[in-house]
Amino acid sequence: MAAPVTPPRGMRDFLPADKARRERILGTIRRVYSAHGFDEIETPVVEDHARLHSGLGGDNEKMSFSVLRRGLGHDDLVAAAEADDAETLADLGLRFDLTVPLARYYASHRAELPPVFRSVQIGPVWRAERPQKGRYRQFVQCDIDIIGEAGPLAEVELIQATTAALAALRLDGVRVRINDRRILTAMLAFFGVPEEQSPAVLITLDKLDKVGVDGVAAELADRGIDAEVVAGIERYLRAARPAAEEGFSEATIRRSLPEGLDDPSIAELAALGAALDGEKLVFDPFLVRGMGYYTGTIFEIEHPDFGYALGGGGRYDGMIGRFINQDVPACGFSIGFERIVDLVDGSQAERPRRIVLVHDRDAAPAVLAAAKAEFVAAGDEVRLERRVKNTRSLLNRVEAEGFDGFAQLAADGTVGEVREFTAATD
Amino acid sequence: MAAPVTPPRGMRDFLPADKARRERILGTIRRVYSAHGFDEIETPVVEDHARLHSGLGGDNEKMSFSVLRRGLGHDDLVAAAEADDAETLADLGLRFDLTVPLARYYASHRAELPPVFRSVQIGPVWRAERPQKGRYRQFVQCDIDIIGEAGPLAEVELIQATTAALAALRLDGVRVRINDRRILTAMLAFFGVPEEQSPAVLITLDKLDKVGVDGVAAELADRGIDAEVVAGIERYLRAARPAAEEGFSEATIRRSLPEGLDDPSIAELAALGAALDGEKLVFDPFLVRGMGYYTGTIFEIEHPDFGYALGGGGRYDGMIGRFINQDVPACGFSIGFERIVDLVDGSQAERPRRIVLVHDRDAAPAVLAAAKAEFVAAGDEVRLERRVKNTRSLLNRVEAEGFDGFAQLAADGTVGEVREFTAATD
Repeated sequence: MAAPVTPPRGMRDFLPADKARRERILGTIRRVYSAHGFDEIETPVVEDHARLHSGLGGDNEKMSFSVLRRGLGHDDLVAAAEADDAETLADLGLRFDLTVPLARYYASHRAELPPVFRSVQIGPVWRAERPQKGRYRQFVQCDIDIIGEAGPLAEVELIQATTAALAALRLDGVRVRINDRRILTAMLAFFGVPEEQSPAVLITLDKLDKVGVDGVAAELADRGIDAEVVAGIERYLRAARPAAEEGFSEATIRRSLPEGLDDPSIAELAALGAALDGEKLVFDPFLVRGMGYYTGTIFEIEHPDFGYALGGGGRYDGMIGRFINQDVPACGFSIGFERIVDLVDGSQAERPRRIVLVHDRDAAPAVLAAAKAEFVAAGDEVRLERRVKNTRSLLNRVEAEGFDGFAQLAADGTVGEVREFTAATD
Repeated sequence: MAAPVTPPRGMRDFLPADKARRERILGTIRRVYSAHGFDEIETPVVEDHARLHSGLGGDNEKMSFSVLRRGLGHDDLVAAAEADDAETLADLGLRFDLTVPLARYYASHRAELPPVFRSVQIGPVWRAERPQKGRYRQFVQCDIDIIGEAGPLAEVELIQATTAALAALRLDGVRVRINDRRILTAMLAFFGVPEEQSPAVLITLDKLDKVGVDGVAAELADRGIDAEVVAGIERYLRAARPAAEEGFSEATIRRSLPEGLDDPSIAELAALGAALDGEKLVFDPFLVRGMGYYTGTIFEIEHPDFGYALGGGGRYDGMIGRFINQDVPACGFSIGFERIVDLVDGSQAERPRRIVLVHDRDAAPAVLAAAKAEFVAAGDEVRLERRVKNTRSLLNRVEAEGFDGFAQLAADGTVGEVREFTAATD
């Protein structure tokens, strides 16, 4: 058979050791989120094609995988192809995030859910990204969301649960960069950016880390922003400093903003900081986050050892309600699972002993099964391995696989002493 | 927005209580399989379209969902539609089982796996079945397989691990119906069925439970099987009885087969039975199982309380090797997860206490967060609930959601006594 035996482009198989690590880390995250009062839900991995392309997913919509409609006759297929009729060709698509499915789920089941619904959703999503290091076409997202809570309690619970989950994974000392879309909006108005140009200016500002002040100013000019407006933004960017080292208060937030800028959301953000006493918060006036649906607070979580965000989220009050034509407040936080999975050791504090029973080639299956059953009953994880000429290589292999020790199993069922690898290799 | 908020046809959302049950049951199964020496792996949910349609999946191939190739230009799309060129239209497809992915995975990674590889694979598969009660278009399969073991030890370990997993779910007293494809082949030869008609005869025999002896005889005649051959089969069917109540031995197996039929696989099957002392085995000469790839033992597991199989499997020595052009013995057992999930209670013997903190509408987020954090630190699962006028309805709702008790949380942070629901509702 000519087809390659590798997984599809940009997707991954997981070997047992990797799979075990991933499941242990997800288990820790699940346990912490559960303790913090979040309930896990599950939705199908496919959604209606029309829903996935309703504009909520931003650029991700363009990267989605579509599922061919079944039962299309030849003529209908040709007609749809000629008309470039995507909706006829494909009735379903693989989800590109967990937020669109959550919004649909909530619209469908809200009568069966508590008035303030705290959800956990963990599962794979798919995007047809150009494969590159650290980018996959199937990857796991790990989202918590609070729906139905308009006040800052939502942000407080989300941030506390997330930092607790990371701490349980021994990623202590994280800090949370926070901004508010309303402050960004007020700032753009303050600088005199016309409303229709605001989204473009935000996209440019979001690149400050990468291209610097000169780069931002040049791109703003390229975008046709008025020269005086650009000059004002540039002056501010050169002067402003995130309030990183000064603590999080209304005073430090105001110091980071253009002098004379005022908006009620500033005091609200400061109040959120006060409620999150004990968390390390940093006001970042340049934090934008890409998605168009954010309406209030936005945040990202960082670890001092790594140069990228471990997760992020924000308030998106307008979105959930679109499916039911009513306003529903919502706020979410997503852990970048594929980023953290390589950072944490994922070992288990408490786990069963894993041993190998090395047996003769011709030992009877009944004898082997009985010996194995005894160790299983005692709480061990047990694998049978046939004796080979080079016992040392066999033992090295299973030790590398993570087994703790081995015992010899004779053909008559006699089991020798269990020898732990650290002792055995002395 | 006009699109329905229900999940796609034949697929399901899971509410928190259902999701929790499913995860607990899968956790139990995972734990038992791990103890029995099986290693969990994961493969992407999509595979190359050509691989999914290479003939290994039988009828399931026809029910598979195809993923539209990305980046097809208008002209290429129209040309592919006109030519009914499925491979150009779709480069990927959603997997319809876990066996085809396992075969590809093994071919890709065998150098990194132990010589006898015991795998667990748990995950969703997709089939475009006509939706009906108990049939879903996305459902979870739960497979264990042993690759590289030609002897009966594979069957012994698979059957023991499966009955142990069911016992851990309190589905004790299961019995395993066993047959061997080689015995079926010998039987058809014994009756004089020409080799090219054997698959059709097996398909008919598989319906014995549903259509009875008369139905089988009529269908065989319809299929153009020689009248004398049909008469021989019919005589045997009227006389034969599964060895259900007589124990599992070479003698009982032979008693269930046509007098004079002999084949080496009979003694081998009896030896397997001897190695599985303690399991309830039944030789079933009419067990066929649908898939064309089985080459040896085939088995199904039944519980006395339910009229359908809870799982099944068998030996398929020819299949794994197809991708690497060499013979690789393989044997697998699949638990029918969607069938058992409704049969077992899935409650947890040991779990954290789940409590609700009922608080004033205007309590400060910082106060609420601090009170919650204290209960979380003590090991509880905690949800905050705003006080409503009708406290009784709130308490009834959270009790129905599975909470164990509640406490009142005053605006100053004072927490009242935790009252358990059984006591509170007295």
